[in-house]
Amino acid sequence: MSNPGIYSLNSAHVAQATDEWLAKRGVAKRDIAELVLFLQKDYFPGLTIEDCIVHVDAVLSKREVQNAVLTGIQLDLLAEEGKLIPPLQDMIKHDESLYGCDEILALSIVNVYGSIGFTNFGYVDKVKPGILVRLNSKTDGEIHTFLDDIVGAIAASAASRIAHRKQAEREGVTTPPLD
Amino acid sequence: MSNPGIYSLNSAHVAQATDEWLAKRGVAKRDIAELVLFLQKDYFPGLTIEDCIVHVDAVLSKREVQNAVLTGIQLDLLAEEGKLIPPLQDMIKHDESLYGCDEILALSIVNVYGSIGFTNFGYVDKVKPGILVRLNSKTDGEIHTFLDDIVGAIAASAASRIAHRKQAEREGVTTPPLD
Amino acid sequence: MSNPGIYSLNSAHVAQATDEWLAKRGVAKRDIAELVLFLQKDYFPGLTIEDCIVHVDAVLSKREVQNAVLTGIQLDLLAEEGKLIPPLQDMIKHDESLYGCDEILALSIVNVYGSIGFTNFGYVDKVKPGILVRLNSKTDGEIHTFLDDIVGAIAASAASRIAHRKQAEREGVTTPPLD
Amino acid sequence: MSNPGIYSLNSAHVAQATDEWLAKRGVAKRDIAELVLFLQKDYFPGLTIEDCIVHVDAVLSKREVQNAVLTGIQLDLLAEEGKLIPPLQDMIKHDESLYGCDEILALSIVNVYGSIGFTNFGYVDKVKPGILVRLNSKTDGEIHTFLDDIVGAIAASAASRIAHRKQAEREGVTTPPLD
Repeated sequence: MSNPGIYSLNSAHVAQATDEWLAKRGVAKRDIAELVLFLQKDYFPGLTIEDCIVHVDAVLSKREVQNAVLTGIQLDLLAEEGKLIPPLQDMIKHDESLYGCDEILALSIVNVYGSIGFTNFGYVDKVKPGILVRLNSKTDGEIHTFLDDIVGAIAASAASRIAHRKQAEREGVTTPPLD
Repeated sequence: MSNPGIYSLNSAHVAQATDEWLAKRGVAKRDIAELVLFLQKDYFPGLTIEDCIVHVDAVLSKREVQNAVLTGIQLDLLAEEGKLIPPLQDMIKHDESLYGCDEILALSIVNVYGSIGFTNFGYVDKVKPGILVRLNSKTDGEIHTFLDDIVGAIAASAASRIAHRKQAEREGVTTPPLD
Repeated sequence: MSNPGIYSLNSAHVAQATDEWLAKRGVAKRDIAELVLFLQKDYFPGLTIEDCIVHVDAVLSKREVQNAVLTGIQLDLLAEEGKLIPPLQDMIKHDESLYGCDEILALSIVNVYGSIGFTNFGYVDKVKPGILVRLNSKTDGEIHTFLDDIVGAIAASAASRIAHRKQAEREGVTTPPLD
Repeated sequence: MSNPGIYSLNSAHVAQATDEWLAKRGVAKRDIAELVLFLQKDYFPGLTIEDCIVHVDAVLSKREVQNAVLTGIQLDLLAEEGKLIPPLQDMIKHDESLYGCDEILALSIVNVYGSIGFTNFGYVDKVKPGILVRLNSKTDGEIHTFLDDIVGAIAASAASRIAHRKQAEREGVTTPPLD
């Protein structure tokens, strides 16, 4: 039995909270997988949505990613409730173009799978395919200033992971150098 | 007269809020300047605390820096009030060593003055001189998980700015390449 | 008269070499300015190519940017001459998709103007408008694995600079927070 | 039989070249492992040098890391031979303090294991324990402007990997979230 007075990180709780909060905020893993497919289908014609879901799951299993997801959703939530310091409240609510902490958090996700994901991150963030349209619509009173970038970053990371794995397959290697 | 229904970024408000919140959280510009002096006094023997304050002010005038300061203090404040999503609440409250979003935000400050500040950031964050001891003491019920790293990053950035300016002075240039 | 035996950084030489090498590698400032215009014309309808050149010049005056330009062009040049360590030679010559040091150097440029430039960087790198088509054509025996990303990064940085300046103009501020 | 006219990445060659070049430049894995032990021994008293070597090997198996190692050593080598563009030659030869591309490449290594490694990287880069003293001595005519930072980054990454693994062990998890 754990002592409630002593803090101890529970990784399973962090992972579970990440999954639950993505779902609560309307983002299914399949939505992210569709962004991955959009990014990679021209390079790997046989790639399926089910394959992409596996890679999205792998990205979401990394703690660095979970930390960014929870922190970003937290700030979006508080902005919806109007509970932030005034200038921060305004900047996050309106997805102010000169406010870049959302891109910063997103980049920390992309970094985990290496620099080859930067381009894909910037591209989906600009083109806004699939789920990203809805996250940016601002029509339902919800604020997704952070989640929007985070979802793009998870998709870009999963795309990087696929690129690394496919290379390993081509070379007949079973344990790829960058997982 | 501005229309209250239409959002428009007010940069002066963002700058002012940054100054006020640093003060409210117990961080004087002189405290940050002392970290800068600690980092640079061996390289520039004539450097004074007043010089350092000028450079700290310049760093704090950058919007990217202001955004990071406000966002970090916001998360610290909410952690003090116990208002965060459970696993995030625990990780920020206890400055969990596997939670790195504080370092991420701090790095976005260091980046503005170029890569030469990384080393100084890591160094003060580990050695924790001056104000950083107090921010880490956790004895007064305050939580400074983010501010601690942010203050170190501002000091490292001011140190980089000094290095760039001193070089410009040596070369007799009046408008330095990196301000 | 300087003592040739004692090293002393000459910033004017670094700046001049940056300009000369960009020209030698077939990249005019106007080419980069056209990328900037492509990125920003929808947001600032009155923006001219001459305005964009001013911002490109400002970005190129930063030492962090000059360092990245010279280092990237150096690696491209050596790859053209076939003088690199074998696996590096192959990866840079073929712009290997799993080699990301080019994106890394480019990102160090984007960082100087803050995180708001990441998206534009990724976008032009993927869409490859204007000069980027030629840099990627590989038909003339030239290798631009690094320069291609660096040019995109300079354009994205100039776009960020414009966004910061235009905001300052709107607010009637003469000295913008992020130059 | 592979067709010599068609490029195809050979990951085993990249990995092998990384190992060989580190050795040729006088850096044994044990040297890096000693830096890791220096960083982590206070947190994990039972940690041995052999444990640290295992983690260094894991870091070195990542392609992003191999790319940075080879690129950095390449630039050091060319600087030793005096073959770089003049201002770059001078800056790298003298480890110019305003030249930060070495820190940039090093940071791309640290990023792969998440942001918790930044502090350790900055710390060893400043304190320069063990092998880092020799790499900085400049007495043997060798230039290690890049390798010096890269070795510190590999050690900081291995330290991060240990922190993640030890947490997983504490929680009784066999597949840690960040490997």
